[in-house]
Amino acid sequence: MFKFLLPKEFNFFELLEKMSGHAVEAAAYFKELVAKGGIDENALSKMHDIEHQGDEVAHDIIQQLNKTFITPFDREDIHALAKELDDVIDMIYTIVSRMKIYKLTKVNKNLVEFSLVIEESVRQVACAVKGLRKTNDGEAILAACVEINRLENVADSMRDKVLTELFENEKDPIAVIKLKEIYQDAETVLDICEDVAHVVGSILVKQA
Amino acid sequence: MFKFLLPKEFNFFELLEKMSGHAVEAAAYFKELVAKGGIDENALSKMHDIEHQGDEVAHDIIQQLNKTFITPFDREDIHALAKELDDVIDMIYTIVSRMKIYKLTKVNKNLVEFSLVIEESVRQVACAVKGLRKTNDGEAILAACVEINRLENVADSMRDKVLTELFENEKDPIAVIKLKEIYQDAETVLDICEDVAHVVGSILVKQA
Amino acid sequence: MFKFLLPKEFNFFELLEKMSGHAVEAAAYFKELVAKGGIDENALSKMHDIEHQGDEVAHDIIQQLNKTFITPFDREDIHALAKELDDVIDMIYTIVSRMKIYKLTKVNKNLVEFSLVIEESVRQVACAVKGLRKTNDGEAILAACVEINRLENVADSMRDKVLTELFENEKDPIAVIKLKEIYQDAETVLDICEDVAHVVGSILVKQA
Repeated sequence: MFKFLLPKEFNFFELLEKMSGHAVEAAAYFKELVAKGGIDENALSKMHDIEHQGDEVAHDIIQQLNKTFITPFDREDIHALAKELDDVIDMIYTIVSRMKIYKLTKVNKNLVEFSLVIEESVRQVACAVKGLRKTNDGEAILAACVEINRLENVADSMRDKVLTELFENEKDPIAVIKLKEIYQDAETVLDICEDVAHVVGSILVKQA
Repeated sequence: MFKFLLPKEFNFFELLEKMSGHAVEAAAYFKELVAKGGIDENALSKMHDIEHQGDEVAHDIIQQLNKTFITPFDREDIHALAKELDDVIDMIYTIVSRMKIYKLTKVNKNLVEFSLVIEESVRQVACAVKGLRKTNDGEAILAACVEINRLENVADSMRDKVLTELFENEKDPIAVIKLKEIYQDAETVLDICEDVAHVVGSILVKQA
Repeated sequence: MFKFLLPKEFNFFELLEKMSGHAVEAAAYFKELVAKGGIDENALSKMHDIEHQGDEVAHDIIQQLNKTFITPFDREDIHALAKELDDVIDMIYTIVSRMKIYKLTKVNKNLVEFSLVIEESVRQVACAVKGLRKTNDGEAILAACVEINRLENVADSMRDKVLTELFENEKDPIAVIKLKEIYQDAETVLDICEDVAHVVGSILVKQA
C-alpha cells in the first residue's frame, strides 16, 4: 500500500502505536491508582503528563496527515483513530481529576472492577492498532475487536448494576452526584474503545 | 444514479428504511411504556432487542459501505444516517433503561408528552429517509424536515418548562437528579432526529 | 485559490466572518449579563435572537457548500467551522437559558471570570477565522490559535478550582446540581473554541 513511499517521520503506524501505548499507560496507571484509593497531587500530575504526551502525538499525527498526500489508509480513518485514542486518555484523566476534586479517598470496589475492564479493553485496542501493519492477516485485529465489543457489553451491565445499587443505597445526594458521574465516565472509556474498534474494522474491510 | 449497478444486497435504501423502521418501533414502544408507567424486565428486554436489531442493520450498512465503490449518494452521508438512526434508538433505549434503574414506576405526564413528540418526529424521520429514493421529488422530504425542525423546537420549550417546574417544586435532590437526566435525554432524541433531517437535507441539495 | 470563481453570494470568508461575529456578540452579551446577575425574559430573548441569527448563517454556509463545487479550502473544514461556531453560540445560549431556569439571580464571581475568558477566546476565534483570507501570512492565525489553546488551559484550571470549592462549601445538593452544570458548560465553550482553532490550524497546514 505505498508504504515504501512514506519517509520514516511520516510513519503513521509508529505514531498510532505510540499513541495507543500512551493509552495503555494511562489505563494501567488508573488501575494502580484506584487499587490504592485516593488521588494525590503527584498522581494527578503523573496522569497529566501521560495525557499531555498523548496530546502531542495526536497533534503530530494530524500535522503529518495534513502534509502527506499518500497515506497507508483513508486519511479520515487515521484522523478518527488519533482523535479517539486521545479521547480514551482524556476520559481516563478526567476521571482521575474528578476523583481528586470530589475527595474520593477510599478504595471503591466498583471502580477497581471498572479499571480492570478498562485496562483490558485498552490493551486490546493497542493490539488492534498494531494489527493495522498487516491488514492482509486480519485475524488478530478481528479477535481484538470482538473482545473490545464484549468488554463494552460487560461495562454496560456493570454500570447499570452499580447505578442501581447507588440509587438504592446511597442517601447522600452529593455522594450520588459524584459517583454517578464517575461510573458513567468509566463506562464511556469502553464506549470510546469500541469506537476505535469500529474504525479499525472499517479499515480492514476497505483493504480486503 | 447508478442504482442498477448495485446488487440487491447492497441496497442502501432498503437498509436505511429497515433502520428507520426499527427507530419507529422503538419510539412507538417507548410511548406505550411511558403511558403505562413502570418498566419491568420484559419491557427492557424487548427494547433491548429493538436496539440490538438496529445495531445489526447499522453494522450491515457500514460494512456494505466499506465494500461498495459506487453509492447512491455521498458515502459520508450514508455513514452519518446509519450512525444517527442508531443514536436515536440508543438514546430511547438509554431512557428506558434509566427509568428502570431509577425505579420510576408512576405515569409521568411530562414523559408521556415527550413520547408523543418523539414518536411523531421519528415517523417524520422515516418519511424523510423513504423520500431519498426519489430525490427528484423533494417536496415530501422537505415537508418532513420542516416538521422535524418544528418538533425539535417544541421539545426544547417542553424541556425548559418541565425543568423549571422540577426545580421549583421537587425538593428531593435525588428525584431532581433522576428526572433532570431523563427529561434532557428525551429532548436529545429530538436533537438527533434534527441531525438526521440535516443530513437528508444536504443529500437533497447535492442532488439538485 | 480560485476565489475569483466564486460569486459574491458564495463568499465563504464573508459568511464565516459573519458567523464568528455572532459568536463574539453572544460572548460579549453573556459577559454583560453575568456582570449584572439575573437573566430576565428580555435578556433570554435577545440571546435567543443572536443564536437564531447564528443558526441562519450556519444553514446558509452548509447550503452553499452543498451547491458549490470549488471551495477556497476543504469542504469538510468549512463544514466543521460552521458547525463549531454554531456550537459556541448554542452553548452560550444554553448557559443563559439554564441560569434563568435555575433562577440564579445573584452575581456569581466565578461566572464573571469565566465570561471574561470566554469573550477573549471567542474574539481570538474571530481573528483566526479572519486570518483565513490570507493563509500565506499565517502568523496572525497561529498567534490566535496559541492564545485560544492557552485560554482553554486557563478555563480548565478555573473549572477544577471552582468545582473543588463548590463541593467543599455548598451543602445544598440542588445548588450543587445547578452550578456544577453551569461551570462545566462554561468550560465547554472554551473546548469548542479550541476545536475551531484545530480546524483553522489544519487549513493552514494544508495550504502551506
